[in-house]
Amino acid sequence: MTIELISVGTEILLGNIVNTNASYLSRKCAELGFSLYFEITVGDNEDRLCEVLKSALSRSDIVILTGGLGPTQDDMTKEAVAKVFGRSLIMDEHSKERISSYFSFMYHNNLSKLASSAALPSITENNWKQALKIEGSIVVDNDNGTAPGYIVEGNEIVCKGSQLINEITCKGSQLINEMSWQANPLLDNVVNKRVILLPGPPSEMVPMFDNQIYPYLKKLQNKIFVSKMVKICGIGESKAETDILDLIEAQSNPTIAPYAKSGEVHFRITASAESEEEAEQLITPVLEELYTRFTNNIYTTKEEETLEDVVVNALLQNNLTLTCAESCTGGLLTGRLVNVPGVSGSLKEGFITYSNEAKIRYLGVKEETLKQFGAVSEQTAREMAAGAILATGADVSVAITGIAGPDGGTEEKPVGLVYISCNIKGKIIVKEFRMKGNREKIRDQSVIYALDLLRRSISSKYSINN
Amino acid sequence: MTIELISVGTEILLGNIVNTNASYLSRKCAELGFSLYFEITVGDNEDRLCEVLKSALSRSDIVILTGGLGPTQDDMTKEAVAKVFGRSLIMDEHSKERISSYFSFMYHNNLSKLASSAALPSITENNWKQALKIEGSIVVDNDNGTAPGYIVEGNEIVCKGSQLINEITCKGSQLINEMSWQANPLLDNVVNKRVILLPGPPSEMVPMFDNQIYPYLKKLQNKIFVSKMVKICGIGESKAETDILDLIEAQSNPTIAPYAKSGEVHFRITASAESEEEAEQLITPVLEELYTRFTNNIYTTKEEETLEDVVVNALLQNNLTLTCAESCTGGLLTGRLVNVPGVSGSLKEGFITYSNEAKIRYLGVKEETLKQFGAVSEQTAREMAAGAILATGADVSVAITGIAGPDGGTEEKPVGLVYISCNIKGKIIVKEFRMKGNREKIRDQSVIYALDLLRRSISSKYSINN
Repeated sequence: MTIELISVGTEILLGNIVNTNASYLSRKCAELGFSLYFEITVGDNEDRLCEVLKSALSRSDIVILTGGLGPTQDDMTKEAVAKVFGRSLIMDEHSKERISSYFSFMYHNNLSKLASSAALPSITENNWKQALKIEGSIVVDNDNGTAPGYIVEGNEIVCKGSQLINEITCKGSQLINEMSWQANPLLDNVVNKRVILLPGPPSEMVPMFDNQIYPYLKKLQNKIFVSKMVKICGIGESKAETDILDLIEAQSNPTIAPYAKSGEVHFRITASAESEEEAEQLITPVLEELYTRFTNNIYTTKEEETLEDVVVNALLQNNLTLTCAESCTGGLLTGRLVNVPGVSGSLKEGFITYSNEAKIRYLGVKEETLKQFGAVSEQTAREMAAGAILATGADVSVAITGIAGPDGGTEEKPVGLVYISCNIKGKIIVKEFRMKGNREKIRDQSVIYALDLLRRSISSKYSINN
Repeated sequence: MTIELISVGTEILLGNIVNTNASYLSRKCAELGFSLYFEITVGDNEDRLCEVLKSALSRSDIVILTGGLGPTQDDMTKEAVAKVFGRSLIMDEHSKERISSYFSFMYHNNLSKLASSAALPSITENNWKQALKIEGSIVVDNDNGTAPGYIVEGNEIVCKGSQLINEITCKGSQLINEMSWQANPLLDNVVNKRVILLPGPPSEMVPMFDNQIYPYLKKLQNKIFVSKMVKICGIGESKAETDILDLIEAQSNPTIAPYAKSGEVHFRITASAESEEEAEQLITPVLEELYTRFTNNIYTTKEEETLEDVVVNALLQNNLTLTCAESCTGGLLTGRLVNVPGVSGSLKEGFITYSNEAKIRYLGVKEETLKQFGAVSEQTAREMAAGAILATGADVSVAITGIAGPDGGTEEKPVGLVYISCNIKGKIIVKEFRMKGNREKIRDQSVIYALDLLRRSISSKYSINN
């Protein structure tokens, strides 16, 4: 079964907000095993909304619309769906009551706390627009706002019957004879199709989807889908894909889909089956094959685990304390490690030594080293990492020094030259990198390479359990 | 003129990445005065890509496609555009050379310094696919990756000529007589239309668009659009909008559009006119009105200037050196300041003092203070900022200590409690913040509030020229 998403809102087309609803719903549809081939964003305009809705219904089984359910004149999603389905909008007493009680709750609960009632939400005439439902639709209650959601099923009898009523009302009873199943090609289009209307604000859309729409969709899906994410660091995207091109070309079930991420490559393996066990059994050999080919370049197969999670967990597992000494990255590496809750068990402090003086003062880098080899050199990186250990007594240190640009590059030492050093209990490694891109990209990549060097250094000396 | 955006990538349809390219380009199109009515996302599938491209060309003047220009078999944006335009793909020697030098730069410069070449990016046969260009298109160089961009202009002669050649090649010369302007309705569709192809990774797409596509589009627009971005920090979004609701409701030319950004509010004022001077004259009174209402909450009206730019420039203008002492942000504040080229003139070092011991050792925070008030307290923040000055001799210091969560909160000191202190030549300010959101959001907001506190502290003692 295929789903198509339509996001409604001029504010998205103006770039005013990022469409996180679309990515949320996409992920959920993939999880449910529905195929999603098209996502459309359209403004608050009835004609254009009808146009995209009709083309969506012509090619997809289920259409999910978000946005345009508000109380203002701009909001016309419900009107457009009613039009395409040839149905009327009718007052829904249940929704009317809910909206009314929502407002009295908001009003009375805030009233006592505020000096003035001017800023309080109060019900206006146009709020009743939100209580109108599409004839024959299922109303989905909104626990976090006033706009209900709707499920419209293109049931044959309702479609044709409703159209019959509309035409009779409009044009008189002599039209009855003219009606036939082919009378309205538009209506044939919606038979056995489903349209789901959800409010636009993510704080209303997400809980409504999770609690009420997800179970509805799950019932429509009889296959089980299971997926694993294989996350790789230290190999470029095209190299990684070339290495498993034969697997990608031969894929059917499970499928293998590559995802590029700055400095990393992710492959998602997805299997569909009658049961979870069967799906897992389909995934296992593919996973094993990827481990054979990419070995320790794979840092995790857990969906939510990041590179910094793996590093911090490896440090904690082995009771290792870490300290960082950063020059060109200026704290970004440490800032990223501090993303991981519980990092305080390993990381006690870090040094941002941007100037030569700071490298000498806090890390004991020798003045001669800086003079002879420069601040961006293998020797300086090595001394930074060694000095960080001496200064703090940590078990592991990592040091970064480089030229992030846009200025400061020379022919011998161009922008993008970065040295990263890792010191684990006296064993020092220094790696030289030459990166491309702007200042931001060079700094971001430096952080990823440093995390990866840490990961590999720890795993070559200690164990990392994934 | 109308623009339509097509984002290509199965990873978007699977919800694996949020489509920030679409919101970025939407904003830029609005800025240029183009109308955007539809945004489409489609997977890496040639048939569906052709389908949406054709419908986009039938209703919009310019179509911008992002993604699907990579080296793998999945990537087929170029192939689909060539098909719809009836043109061939031909080897572009210029791109071939660029890709080749990109790889040899990355490869040879890293090779000598590394024990193993396994982690090095190396050119593979499929990379040459990226050097193919659509016949008659303008190649747009990519300074941050291997995939070039393209501008395809539906020039009448090229379209028909190319189609002619293709048909002759395919079916033999007897077909020439059959050709007429109406021969291929598809090709009529693309006459006078423009398609722009951009790489998918934002780090490549954004600079390519800004430097090369923006000026190209600007030339196509005959009205002059001038806009100013008013960037505000220290006021919530809904408060800021309520404060100028009368201006927003009365807007026509110039228009005022709000853009929410984590911890900041931006308003774009856009005027269209026959000349730049005339547009500027329309903007001036609105800008003055916003300054009257928001006073020093406005930190810049320059499009490209960030909060950290303003802070670093103020420090440099007043010959002030800065040092940072970070706990819960773990280096993110310093990392963000180091974004600004030239920051080394002011920032020499920073301390990440995540543990109590590090706060005592590097910043001289008193043990009693930590015992009596805790690490997250006004007193500790104050001592951190004072100690950072003592340790380094800097003119200005900023210190952050807080509870980013998810654990570590208590009823008295909940997750989201953050203290930020700023010390300018002995004058110390400490501010308490209570933030909402997850760990990442609390840390990001802390960085913004620290930058804003720095900005306000410097401007109250020194001058800031914008």
